[in-house]
Amino acid sequence: MQSIGKGILTQTGWEIIKNSYEAKQAINDGSSFMTGNGYLGYRGTFAHDSSEAYVGCFVTDTWDNADGKWEELSNVPNALFTTFHVEGHDLTLTQPHQDFERSLDLSQGLTGYQATFPVSAGTVTLKEEKFASLAQHHVLGMRHVITADHPTVLVIESGIDTVLWDLNQQHLRGFDVKDTARGFEVQAQTSQSNIQVNVLERRYPLEGGQVVVKEGKHLMRWEVTLKENEPLILDKLMVVTSSNDHEHPSSALSQMEASVESYDALKQENKLAWDAYWARFDIIIEGNLSDQVATRFNTYHAIIATPMHKPLPIGARGLSCQAYQGAAFWDQEIYNTPMYLFSYPKQARMLLEYRYQTLDGARKKARKHGYEGAFYAWISGKTGEEICPDFFFKDVLSDRPIRNHFNLWQIHISPDIAYSIVRYYEVTQDEDFMRLYGLEMMFEIARFIASRVVFKPRLNRYELTQVQGPDEYHENVDNNAFTNYQSHAALKETLRYLEHFNPEDINKVRQQINLGDHEISLWHDITNKLYLPKPNQEGLIEQFDGFFNLESVVPAHEVTKRLKHPEEYYGWPNGITVFTQCNKQADMVQLFSLHPSLFNRDTMRMNYAYYEPRTLHFSSLSPSTHALVAARLGMVEEAYRHFKKALMIDLLNTNEAVSGGTFIGGMHTANNGATWAMITQGFLGLKRSHNHLYALNPVLPKEWKSVTFFTDIQGVRHKIYVSHEEISILNLSQSPMETTILLNEETITFRSQYQSQKQSRA
Amino acid sequence: MQSIGKGILTQTGWEIIKNSYEAKQAINDGSSFMTGNGYLGYRGTFAHDSSEAYVGCFVTDTWDNADGKWEELSNVPNALFTTFHVEGHDLTLTQPHQDFERSLDLSQGLTGYQATFPVSAGTVTLKEEKFASLAQHHVLGMRHVITADHPTVLVIESGIDTVLWDLNQQHLRGFDVKDTARGFEVQAQTSQSNIQVNVLERRYPLEGGQVVVKEGKHLMRWEVTLKENEPLILDKLMVVTSSNDHEHPSSALSQMEASVESYDALKQENKLAWDAYWARFDIIIEGNLSDQVATRFNTYHAIIATPMHKPLPIGARGLSCQAYQGAAFWDQEIYNTPMYLFSYPKQARMLLEYRYQTLDGARKKARKHGYEGAFYAWISGKTGEEICPDFFFKDVLSDRPIRNHFNLWQIHISPDIAYSIVRYYEVTQDEDFMRLYGLEMMFEIARFIASRVVFKPRLNRYELTQVQGPDEYHENVDNNAFTNYQSHAALKETLRYLEHFNPEDINKVRQQINLGDHEISLWHDITNKLYLPKPNQEGLIEQFDGFFNLESVVPAHEVTKRLKHPEEYYGWPNGITVFTQCNKQADMVQLFSLHPSLFNRDTMRMNYAYYEPRTLHFSSLSPSTHALVAARLGMVEEAYRHFKKALMIDLLNTNEAVSGGTFIGGMHTANNGATWAMITQGFLGLKRSHNHLYALNPVLPKEWKSVTFFTDIQGVRHKIYVSHEEISILNLSQSPMETTILLNEETITFRSQYQSQKQSRA
Repeated sequence: MQSIGKGILTQTGWEIIKNSYEAKQAINDGSSFMTGNGYLGYRGTFAHDSSEAYVGCFVTDTWDNADGKWEELSNVPNALFTTFHVEGHDLTLTQPHQDFERSLDLSQGLTGYQATFPVSAGTVTLKEEKFASLAQHHVLGMRHVITADHPTVLVIESGIDTVLWDLNQQHLRGFDVKDTARGFEVQAQTSQSNIQVNVLERRYPLEGGQVVVKEGKHLMRWEVTLKENEPLILDKLMVVTSSNDHEHPSSALSQMEASVESYDALKQENKLAWDAYWARFDIIIEGNLSDQVATRFNTYHAIIATPMHKPLPIGARGLSCQAYQGAAFWDQEIYNTPMYLFSYPKQARMLLEYRYQTLDGARKKARKHGYEGAFYAWISGKTGEEICPDFFFKDVLSDRPIRNHFNLWQIHISPDIAYSIVRYYEVTQDEDFMRLYGLEMMFEIARFIASRVVFKPRLNRYELTQVQGPDEYHENVDNNAFTNYQSHAALKETLRYLEHFNPEDINKVRQQINLGDHEISLWHDITNKLYLPKPNQEGLIEQFDGFFNLESVVPAHEVTKRLKHPEEYYGWPNGITVFTQCNKQADMVQLFSLHPSLFNRDTMRMNYAYYEPRTLHFSSLSPSTHALVAARLGMVEEAYRHFKKALMIDLLNTNEAVSGGTFIGGMHTANNGATWAMITQGFLGLKRSHNHLYALNPVLPKEWKSVTFFTDIQGVRHKIYVSHEEISILNLSQSPMETTILLNEETITFRSQYQSQKQSRA
Repeated sequence: MQSIGKGILTQTGWEIIKNSYEAKQAINDGSSFMTGNGYLGYRGTFAHDSSEAYVGCFVTDTWDNADGKWEELSNVPNALFTTFHVEGHDLTLTQPHQDFERSLDLSQGLTGYQATFPVSAGTVTLKEEKFASLAQHHVLGMRHVITADHPTVLVIESGIDTVLWDLNQQHLRGFDVKDTARGFEVQAQTSQSNIQVNVLERRYPLEGGQVVVKEGKHLMRWEVTLKENEPLILDKLMVVTSSNDHEHPSSALSQMEASVESYDALKQENKLAWDAYWARFDIIIEGNLSDQVATRFNTYHAIIATPMHKPLPIGARGLSCQAYQGAAFWDQEIYNTPMYLFSYPKQARMLLEYRYQTLDGARKKARKHGYEGAFYAWISGKTGEEICPDFFFKDVLSDRPIRNHFNLWQIHISPDIAYSIVRYYEVTQDEDFMRLYGLEMMFEIARFIASRVVFKPRLNRYELTQVQGPDEYHENVDNNAFTNYQSHAALKETLRYLEHFNPEDINKVRQQINLGDHEISLWHDITNKLYLPKPNQEGLIEQFDGFFNLESVVPAHEVTKRLKHPEEYYGWPNGITVFTQCNKQADMVQLFSLHPSLFNRDTMRMNYAYYEPRTLHFSSLSPSTHALVAARLGMVEEAYRHFKKALMIDLLNTNEAVSGGTFIGGMHTANNGATWAMITQGFLGLKRSHNHLYALNPVLPKEWKSVTFFTDIQGVRHKIYVSHEEISILNLSQSPMETTILLNEETITFRSQYQSQKQSRA
């Protein structure tokens, strides 16, 4: 057993283990130890837990706006609720127990625990495991194994709990519970969006139970005789769907339930599904078990947060809770897409199809604010209409709500999506996607930018004013370098497509959206004259107009001494960072992460050195970006420092769960996804390269012996092994084609396997 | 005696009287009862008062920035400090006294009081009067008359008090006091700007005194025998100058002091000077003594706040205290200039020359913020460089300073100055002024606007974004109607001058400032395409983009219930009005006040009706503007209601002295100046009219019997009498020329006198 920190252990690098039970860690542990499958997320709580312990099963595509402000996913009734009682003792973890151990098996998404409870006449040992099936998204399985060291009577109460934890008012209403042949079934409606949600249990196959209803729990109660040291195995299923998934949810539930032969069969099928995923996404790190398990932990959470069944957003907190509204932010493109782009392009396409699906919402938002084209929602749910409230934080000192302008001024969301489209097409060469979706999105994004820029006649240039960059602590800024460069790139690539893509396809899309020549000339003009902040005499690029005039506080963390209240929001309008150069995350470093060749290496290093000490890294997005850029710039130790920080955000719960009075806990799915990128695009230097399938340029941390990962680019799947001494690449196809890659700036051509000679590495 | 309210009385309409002494009213009464002459202001305190009673003598052109933040005028040593003692009793108002009466004689700026003090053996009556000479700006005179009802010994201590009340740190340092033949002379330096200030007293001509120095007071002490009921008259002078006024301040003081023959002579000369001023500025109101005296009170304060000796700003609080930094705001053009423009054009020109003098400061400010031309200072001292601090209010709830952007976003200051230039030339036809100053300012203002607009290519229009209108509660708004229309007017008039003014003069100025043809074409383009918000379907003009989407709180005052602290600032960034339509003052009404013919009468009435109930009138500028516009729109009762409110702001101290933690007390000089405008431009409808010397269109409040006022337009001086029945106009020139005016839309031509037949009036 190796300790990772804060009581987290691992044995093989495939599981996390905790052997102390802390009720007050329920929020964090419930997220870390959760199971899920991209359709639903079931928190890592215990079968005996109720809503006070933050039990949650959050289901995609169940958005509801109960309080008129917060549109969020619904938590559905908990059909895994079960309690055990022996000799008047509750076998719950709030009661005295020993030999507690909980674990999450990352290899198959299995979460569980065991503990031994002293009862009157001896002890009873309880083992619980459950999982959301990756193969059958609507089904969860749970098994209990109960062993008493003496003959006794076990009282079981198991059924469905309809009392639910909701962040912002109760989403489900009108609970209708019926007792079916298989167990209880609950039907309910979301309060505002009127979605029907159905949950069914497959009850324990025990005889002679009786129905007990208490405090919103519909239970069956049995008494079972336990023999001495003879384990009782109890299996249970939970099946969930909604009217957005099935036209007739109730009958769909029955069919799905009936199709599951047994818990063991469900588990086996789930294992096979996970094996296939890990064959794509696993990163094998030799030399540091802690990094190994933490990497898998993050990848696991990135996977279970990603809807793979249809185009839906990856929630910024995934399906771990209702925070961040189960909705997509720019993170989806910038942080979650790369892993899929290089290893599972079908899923990358699905995420971009989601953006196509929300194009009308983006058009609507643009029109609402007087713009044209596609102004993507800052917080994007099903339709892509903006669901980011105008007021979400509050000034805890004055107890007044704050009007943040994320939904209005963070316009970089649109060019960020364009960026992801460009990368997708660059890596996959998927012309079908471009014809159907990509070109139209690019054009509408260009349209938006063209309607958003302003021209300053006396400077003879276009500018983007009143914006907010990724560094959210500085709102209402002009010419944010990140936003300007991203917008410029979007326009440039759009013009390139217009010139080089099949004219027939282009014209079809142009006709579809009525795109005139005058618009395209305007895009040319803007591309030529958009202000792009250049390095000044000291080589520094100003984050936005006037940034260098702000107070410089170095190291940035010093600024936190100015807090008057621990939950103060740091940014707009009057937080402690607003008039300083202290960043939440560094826009320039972010820009370098996306455009590694925009500036020369010296400029990037110089700016990194300037901005990093001014960065608070209070966004969970910040450390991974710094790791990635530092690695690319050859600063391996610096990169590794940030890598470790990023890696542990959720595993060791290093980030605040509340800011400006708002709950922001749960899994940081963008950072989960970024783990893959930090290692492959950062340390290993993976990127698309003109004329090559991809390029690699590895700089391995000295803490590691080797790294192995997998790519799937244009139908070619490679297993890539990099150690300090050698690199070997295996083509995983049955009958491999010849491929050309760029390895440390050298072109390498091979068919089935490439193996480097011994070589010394940084 | 007629009561005006709050203990203020008048006898003849030429004086204000108060017969109760309230020490806690020292801040307000000290302002109301002050004397001054545009060079200095001496607060209405008592000779025995010290700095704790807010004694102040504020002198123009002595700006100093002691604390590195607030540049303000200096308070100079008080050479009128005098105390009297009889039989161990202090004859000061904090001691028991009777028959107190204080007064300000508006006809000659004489402030004083009398009171009777009980002493051990009887009573002593003290009469004090003082004035700042309007004829000799550097000189103040003070007379005491002391009468005992029994023989006794009077102890006199009189000299110079060097302990001074300063708002933001001590401005004068290095006091050097010498005892000259005439009395004490103090020399000191301003702490940051290093201006030398000298103050000299002409001591009482008494024998046998001895020097007493205590607590910063340099005094001479005498003992004088008083005979029963035989008044002792004591006259004293104070003479003030600075190194900005005289190269050798000390010898200048001696000469000035020597030139004053006696207190009586000084007083007589002062009276003559005042007579000449009142012959220009007096407005005689028959039928309401309260309105009469309040009108004179405001006019008096407008006069004594105006530097007439050289081009210097009218402080927003005049010379009544250091608040608002003794500096000019846009008020100077919009509120203080009209009275001079129509009655004393030389002074209107001087105020505009002040703006010419600060043109370089305005150019500097423009360059600092990346613009061109003249971006006038929001708070303008001597040089016109911006002296408005970035942070001045604080959020009293969080105790954090607020960054208001008055200095950056209230760009209307520049077109407001252009507006005043245009009006000045329109009324005076002073081509000399235009050649020397006016054209250059207009061009530089146009340049600024051209560098400040942004062009939105997809809307094919120019806009002014990120601004703040006169309604200061809404910062960071786009297309503020007031700002856009004012800027448009400035450009349009500039282009008109370019076309119609003498080409030789135009070219000279153009060469001087290197004004290229391309700039002028740009001005044309902007004038054609600047977005000017038009009435919507309901006839309403939106104050700025999105204003109508803000919460409507009617009546506006309801919003104050949301206050959590009485001193909260209402505006940016998070005050109670920010997300509502509640205005500090109404921009649209302000716009109508300046451009009576931009919109038709119906539109103006409709917008007035919409905006007025949404206006808090928390700017002292608001009521007078509403009075003026309502009167012009024929809503006489509504106009009179606002007129009364405006009239009493200082006289009855209706406005807050502290906002957002900042002292904002003192005289509201813009409102003082606006009184003249409300009556003449509002109720009497005075304006410049094409082809006429001026136009009149009177609508008299029913409370008045008649109004008489005086104009001086293009060298023609008229005395105009308007009653409900008749109008008579007298040409005051020795040998009058024929003049043509427009009276109620009818052209009237006359030489020495016009007298209307009996006519019925609204």
